[in-house]
Amino acid sequence: MVPSMAYYENLETRFRQLGILNEATAILGWDAATLMPEGAAGSRAEQLAVLRRMSHDILTGPETGDLLEGAASQRDLDLWRQANLREMRRLWVHATAVPGDLVEAFSRACSACEMKWREARAASDFPSVLPDLQEVLSLVREVAAAKSDRLGVSPYDALLDEYEPGGRTAAIDVLFAELATFLPGLIEAVIARQAALPPPAEPEGPFPVEAQRAAGIALMTQLGFDFNHGRLDVSRHPFCGGTPDDVRITTRYDEADFGRALMGVLHETGHALYERGLPAEWRLQPVGHARGMSLHESQSLLIEMQACRSPEFATFSAPLLRRTFGGSGPAWEPQNLHKLATVVKRSFIRVDADEVTYPAHVILRYRLERAMIAGDLALADLPGAWNDGMRELLGVAPPDDRHGCLQDIHWYDGAWGYFPTYTLGAMTAAQLFDAATRADPAIRPSLAEGNFAPLLAWLRTNVHGKASSLSTDEIIRDATGRSLDAKVFEAHLRRRYLGG
Amino acid sequence: MVPSMAYYENLETRFRQLGILNEATAILGWDAATLMPEGAAGSRAEQLAVLRRMSHDILTGPETGDLLEGAASQRDLDLWRQANLREMRRLWVHATAVPGDLVEAFSRACSACEMKWREARAASDFPSVLPDLQEVLSLVREVAAAKSDRLGVSPYDALLDEYEPGGRTAAIDVLFAELATFLPGLIEAVIARQAALPPPAEPEGPFPVEAQRAAGIALMTQLGFDFNHGRLDVSRHPFCGGTPDDVRITTRYDEADFGRALMGVLHETGHALYERGLPAEWRLQPVGHARGMSLHESQSLLIEMQACRSPEFATFSAPLLRRTFGGSGPAWEPQNLHKLATVVKRSFIRVDADEVTYPAHVILRYRLERAMIAGDLALADLPGAWNDGMRELLGVAPPDDRHGCLQDIHWYDGAWGYFPTYTLGAMTAAQLFDAATRADPAIRPSLAEGNFAPLLAWLRTNVHGKASSLSTDEIIRDATGRSLDAKVFEAHLRRRYLGG
Repeated sequence: MVPSMAYYENLETRFRQLGILNEATAILGWDAATLMPEGAAGSRAEQLAVLRRMSHDILTGPETGDLLEGAASQRDLDLWRQANLREMRRLWVHATAVPGDLVEAFSRACSACEMKWREARAASDFPSVLPDLQEVLSLVREVAAAKSDRLGVSPYDALLDEYEPGGRTAAIDVLFAELATFLPGLIEAVIARQAALPPPAEPEGPFPVEAQRAAGIALMTQLGFDFNHGRLDVSRHPFCGGTPDDVRITTRYDEADFGRALMGVLHETGHALYERGLPAEWRLQPVGHARGMSLHESQSLLIEMQACRSPEFATFSAPLLRRTFGGSGPAWEPQNLHKLATVVKRSFIRVDADEVTYPAHVILRYRLERAMIAGDLALADLPGAWNDGMRELLGVAPPDDRHGCLQDIHWYDGAWGYFPTYTLGAMTAAQLFDAATRADPAIRPSLAEGNFAPLLAWLRTNVHGKASSLSTDEIIRDATGRSLDAKVFEAHLRRRYLGG
Repeated sequence: MVPSMAYYENLETRFRQLGILNEATAILGWDAATLMPEGAAGSRAEQLAVLRRMSHDILTGPETGDLLEGAASQRDLDLWRQANLREMRRLWVHATAVPGDLVEAFSRACSACEMKWREARAASDFPSVLPDLQEVLSLVREVAAAKSDRLGVSPYDALLDEYEPGGRTAAIDVLFAELATFLPGLIEAVIARQAALPPPAEPEGPFPVEAQRAAGIALMTQLGFDFNHGRLDVSRHPFCGGTPDDVRITTRYDEADFGRALMGVLHETGHALYERGLPAEWRLQPVGHARGMSLHESQSLLIEMQACRSPEFATFSAPLLRRTFGGSGPAWEPQNLHKLATVVKRSFIRVDADEVTYPAHVILRYRLERAMIAGDLALADLPGAWNDGMRELLGVAPPDDRHGCLQDIHWYDGAWGYFPTYTLGAMTAAQLFDAATRADPAIRPSLAEGNFAPLLAWLRTNVHGKASSLSTDEIIRDATGRSLDAKVFEAHLRRRYLGG
């Protein structure tokens, strides 16, 4: 007779193998996005497909289901092992909920649509990508229906659950409704206030790539990024990749503007610190992974928006930047750099938006994708609905679809249900930073000295070290004393941008 | 009933999977040697071990043996498929000849010994690594015995066969005996001749890394290296890695001396051109791989030694180098750079040796490793035997074991039977270049214009495109009209170094 403990141990062995394969895939994916010569794209796609297939086979093999069933009645598991088992089951449910043929058809449709989208965006020609997007949407609705049956939640929630475990529209609707209530007025007030003040001075470039890289590395080191377990490189689209033992972040440089690459580096460093802070002993198990996309985004935004766009950080970073770029004059004063880092303006492009207007971009996408998944919005009506929503939420409408519904890759590449995690992350960042600075009054003044150790210590204990042992809501409640609350985010924005 | 064709097709599917896994492993291995932060070494080792294990399992699974048996009686295979089947069998025989326990014990002993060797070499302390090396040697003799039984050749030939398929000591002994006869006298004559002439002038440095890299890239491009399918990077030990669609070569730079990195880049480019020139349609099958280590080395040495240390190449490269490094004066004249590239001197270190003295280093190692495998030389007597051999073959003896039997990683890391391929490669390079320049008289003068296209075209047809469809000897005979012949190599050395 097999002792009952063997079920769980057997599962750990299988998931360890899976975890190692996924790490190999992550490094190969990083390489494809950074260094790989273009001519190798075809053979790299074969390599990634084989590794993903092997990992999928381990996850969905009949033994996995049997072992999960057996382990379910084990009474000898401690809390982390119970949580690990729950996460194993979650991954298995998502992987087995959708029939293999549908997974393959969906994956093919996404690749085709994404390629067509690149051209359509460049030409600002939405109708040219419409048939491909229609195919993606039909298939994503099939996927959502299949997962909905299995998970017992609505189709949209079933999609959301993959990115945001346990995330539900019922909760998001309440939070976003609150944001939508105060944001338009707040945006107007902030813009009026900034317009009444003298504009910040622009430091004079050019800013050589090597100097920008040096500044980035200096600040990453200050933040606690461990270069013995990570790298900084260049890619077209900045990201944080690799593995917890080898966290690789990327940026891209513009010699006319150092701020964008630098803030991008700080943002990705926030992601990297989370990955690196996950508990090493659970590295290859599901419970050892980052909790979900909103908590991941909260870590990048906590570092970028909360910590590094603060006046304290400007006090520390201004002399360092002035030295690195050989600058002089009032543009390099801490107060001016802080002003530059907190300019608010209405714009069309989400990725370029400031933290005050950003949620409007996300709420728009959230409303639209829910309507499309529900069948309440026809794709042909998307451009019009987009522009109406922009006018309502931001007071501006894009001049063309390139600056409108063609700007983001997500829908064209099959990532439906992802958008809300950006703003959930921003709200979580504000709430965590608020709790951290209350719990340890040394955190804020330390930033002015470039000392991130107190902040990192609090994050390690309250977020990073918990990995997926608890739900997102439990982690937020344990760390801040309550569930996600839009009022904390609102208070942060009012304090920083309206001074009260 | 399974149609007989299915055996072979089934094997192709299995080996395709294996080929893709090995490509993924190659990229991860390249990354580990170039970019990976040190702290990731442990998790990377896990990733490589899992991928290698999966690939080993595919190769040695019982189905592979059954399919090979079934396919053996298929009469419907064309020549390339027959050759592919032969190569599949060869890989399978090597992989299944040694019991799993022995493979594992050997692998562990090599890792331990290699680590001990690093310290022993630094301290020039052979006795400190002796027990570990003894363990490696015992196990390598067990491996050799197991493979010897299975392949029906001598234990040493069985080891050699892994690096040099079909390579046999009977043939090598004849070739090396001939070298050993003329080399000592030739070395003496060349050194006397060079001593009688004014020494070449040394270009004045420093040579910035960026300029060295630019010169390397310019020459690689000239040689036909395709940067859409490859890269040039930095690593501690230069190598050619990656895959045929993504060939990645490395070098290391010394700002006081540009010649070493540059010649290294040209050498690795020769390896890269071979990989890139393998037939694309057989990329993932055993028959599509490079033939063996001696032919691989022949391609690097043909480019480095035959083509790029020629007076014609100096005519082309001298102005390019002078321009790149901003040099002036007689040191940058083509004739002087050619003289610098062909200096001969007796030295202790193999990897620094010129092409005239290099074979002496290899013959020494070949004699010694055969004696150790045969049990005719005790490890404790290795340092003495090494020094005696150096005196006999080169007329110098190293001052300590660091410059003697501790200099190369091979034995300590378990690579026994590898050394002869270096000199077989040098001889093959001379013979192929001789045949190529006879077949196409435009090859040599084209080098003076930096035009490698005629040479590359000949290599593509006569070597690269054949992959493993024929034996090394067959490829050499088809390309040059005869088997490997030491006289061609001797004639090359006499012509270049004694002018006749």
